Amino acid sequence: MVAPLRIALAGLGTVGAGVIRLVEANADLIARRAGRPIVVTVVGARDRNKDRGVDLSPYAWEDDMVIMGEREDVDVVVELVGGSDGPALSCARTTIEAGKALVTANKAMIAHHGLELAAKAEAAKVALKFEAAVAGGIPVIKALREGAAANAIERVYGILNGTCNYILSTMEDTGRGFGEVLSEAQAKGYAEADPAFDVEGTDAAHKLSILAAIAFGSKLDFAAVETSGITRLTAADIAQADALGYVIRLIGMADTEAHNGSQRLFQRVQPHLVPFDHPLAHVDGATNAVVAEGNFSGRLLFQGAGAGEGPTASAVVADLIDIARGEVGTPFSVPVAELEAMAPAGAGQRQGRAYIRFMVADRPGALAEITAAMRDAGVSIESLIQKGRAADSGAVMVAMVTHEGPESAVSEAVRLLKGSDSLLEAPLVLQILGD
Amino acid sequence: MVAPLRIALAGLGTVGAGVIRLVEANADLIARRAGRPIVVTVVGARDRNKDRGVDLSPYAWEDDMVIMGEREDVDVVVELVGGSDGPALSCARTTIEAGKALVTANKAMIAHHGLELAAKAEAAKVALKFEAAVAGGIPVIKALREGAAANAIERVYGILNGTCNYILSTMEDTGRGFGEVLSEAQAKGYAEADPAFDVEGTDAAHKLSILAAIAFGSKLDFAAVETSGITRLTAADIAQADALGYVIRLIGMADTEAHNGSQRLFQRVQPHLVPFDHPLAHVDGATNAVVAEGNFSGRLLFQGAGAGEGPTASAVVADLIDIARGEVGTPFSVPVAELEAMAPAGAGQRQGRAYIRFMVADRPGALAEITAAMRDAGVSIESLIQKGRAADSGAVMVAMVTHEGPESAVSEAVRLLKGSDSLLEAPLVLQILGD
Repeated sequence: MVAPLRIALAGLGTVGAGVIRLVEANADLIARRAGRPIVVTVVGARDRNKDRGVDLSPYAWEDDMVIMGEREDVDVVVELVGGSDGPALSCARTTIEAGKALVTANKAMIAHHGLELAAKAEAAKVALKFEAAVAGGIPVIKALREGAAANAIERVYGILNGTCNYILSTMEDTGRGFGEVLSEAQAKGYAEADPAFDVEGTDAAHKLSILAAIAFGSKLDFAAVETSGITRLTAADIAQADALGYVIRLIGMADTEAHNGSQRLFQRVQPHLVPFDHPLAHVDGATNAVVAEGNFSGRLLFQGAGAGEGPTASAVVADLIDIARGEVGTPFSVPVAELEAMAPAGAGQRQGRAYIRFMVADRPGALAEITAAMRDAGVSIESLIQKGRAADSGAVMVAMVTHEGPESAVSEAVRLLKGSDSLLEAPLVLQILGD
Repeated sequence: MVAPLRIALAGLGTVGAGVIRLVEANADLIARRAGRPIVVTVVGARDRNKDRGVDLSPYAWEDDMVIMGEREDVDVVVELVGGSDGPALSCARTTIEAGKALVTANKAMIAHHGLELAAKAEAAKVALKFEAAVAGGIPVIKALREGAAANAIERVYGILNGTCNYILSTMEDTGRGFGEVLSEAQAKGYAEADPAFDVEGTDAAHKLSILAAIAFGSKLDFAAVETSGITRLTAADIAQADALGYVIRLIGMADTEAHNGSQRLFQRVQPHLVPFDHPLAHVDGATNAVVAEGNFSGRLLFQGAGAGEGPTASAVVADLIDIARGEVGTPFSVPVAELEAMAPAGAGQRQGRAYIRFMVADRPGALAEITAAMRDAGVSIESLIQKGRAADSGAVMVAMVTHEGPESAVSEAVRLLKGSDSLLEAPLVLQILGD
């Protein structure tokens, strides 16, 4: 047996403890599959004395995770500290500069600094891997970077945030409202005390920007992701979607469009109406799922647990096994210097069907005003429902589904209605996921 | 740019033509991702003059595919001849013996000779890759071998034959019988003129045996797969399953069980009742899907087109890109010498719920005889339906679902009923897919 691959773990939260448990529990099969043992040699975290439910006595303790990669007894640093900057980024930089491989589950850091780190890793000829940063235990980075590598990817999209999916599918199952279900999810530990990062779509946007860079060979561009979350969705929206044959899911969607001879990159995180017969309509609870549509493979779907100790540790250790097998590769699907800088594509050019929901004052003329705006903007209405007044408010819900048409027309209709006394709040516009 | 990877194509059927189209259409992106161009240099097939819809003039023609690997202008041979033995096997052997890499879509050859070929490839230090042999365009071999490599796989199962799935989901949608739907599938080209290989489960069994070897690190053992097909399923079975909350899918299922300190391998291809809320219940048409349950990852699902020119070519070229990137690896998840020889596990020790359907003579006592046999064998019945006599026969259908219990008890009940005058045919026993 050749020398073991020696791991330093920076960060000992849930995932760090999971990596230790996994490497211990599956040590024999990992050694057989990797061709050499994978052993943790060094660990470090902010607080040495916290009980993490795993025995840390076999491992050297390193207070300063920034210098872990410089230690002689370390081949790979696994960064599980979190946060886009700060200690995580310092640790990543010094590790790569020390000529050691880096594995990370840190989507925020890759979304913000992935290009810089990848360029450094390529220059140092060391591996930089981040399978665990997107969709937890699902090996979707590998699937896109390698499994679907023969394809021009036409579209990549999916359910990238387990907390949002848990909330939406629970609202669907129980008929309860967003706030109530969020509180319950927080009580159960499925949602953070500060849930903004998840429910406002930022976490999904981090992951989408990473997927898009790999799928399209484009320069990672997190800042260009149009992001909206699930906080405005009501039980009535979910019920209305259901009546129309849809579920609502927070979808991260990316594709490219030709523009004056070059490619523009479209990236958006937004709740979508998903038709019952689409595979993503059956993705419930904290599950994640990613669809990649290749020009030869057709539609590929990858589904599994999007977070959690075991699944995330599974992805981290898969990266370690690749490194132990001698794979260096490029962090993205092509070397960083060959990633294309693509300008952001706005939504205006896109065609699609939309769900538009208005909360209107219950008085004559409101519906006429809305439908006139639709007509003037050239939006063709496929179906429209006005729901009787809620008992405890003067608000009436008007929900419509449009025919296929330009998104710009819907935006124009919304603009025309801006400031209308008939509307009690801004209209909610959701895209309908098309084939 | 480094030297191109030069490919010889042995076999120019649908998939061969697809590989040529793919390599031409996506040449630029493949070169960027692989780090070098991938070019076809040599082609060969039985009939040189057949029109295949692709221009073969740029390529050298080689009549004898067995010597393709010996040519100086070839780095990798892609074997797409088909058949477990004969020219395909000769081509594979001579290619590897010549020190060249082999990529194949040939599930029958890998199921029968995969161990021999893998041992030869390891000895010659060349790549042997067969992503396209299982589940078409879905990169499931890679997902199991690499993406889920950190896990002890507890169970691997899925929908592995698109023809059967097309027939079953069409029966479900239309209420028509097996024979009628099969004829239509043949007319549309979704099923072969001789459909036995598909509808009797052999094709799925080939794929299952390959998946099992990779998932469990066991010696590939195609002969041990218990196989039954879909030919006995009737429209009434589909309707009855639907009424109970299930669809019927042909499932290949493999897992291991401890026995006297070693592991036994269970492999079975059989129609199963799949609960509506299971992701496989929503896999329709010619789609394939594979589920792998890892001890840390939890349930992973991979879904996509299981066959066809584009998807299969996508998988073939993904293997070529891996080879161009310099990956050799082992054909299975561990070296052949380390694959465990596992004795086959019979179904007798298994626990589960079953659907049992009887066609009985319409006369007093038949139901009493069946239920007595269940009682005597210790089978506990959860629900039972007797359907009125069909208009054109004297047969009555009795369908039941059992409580969780040993499969051996169901087999015993069937044995007790053997030779009974009440039964017009042997009972049909299908397992219910459990969590």
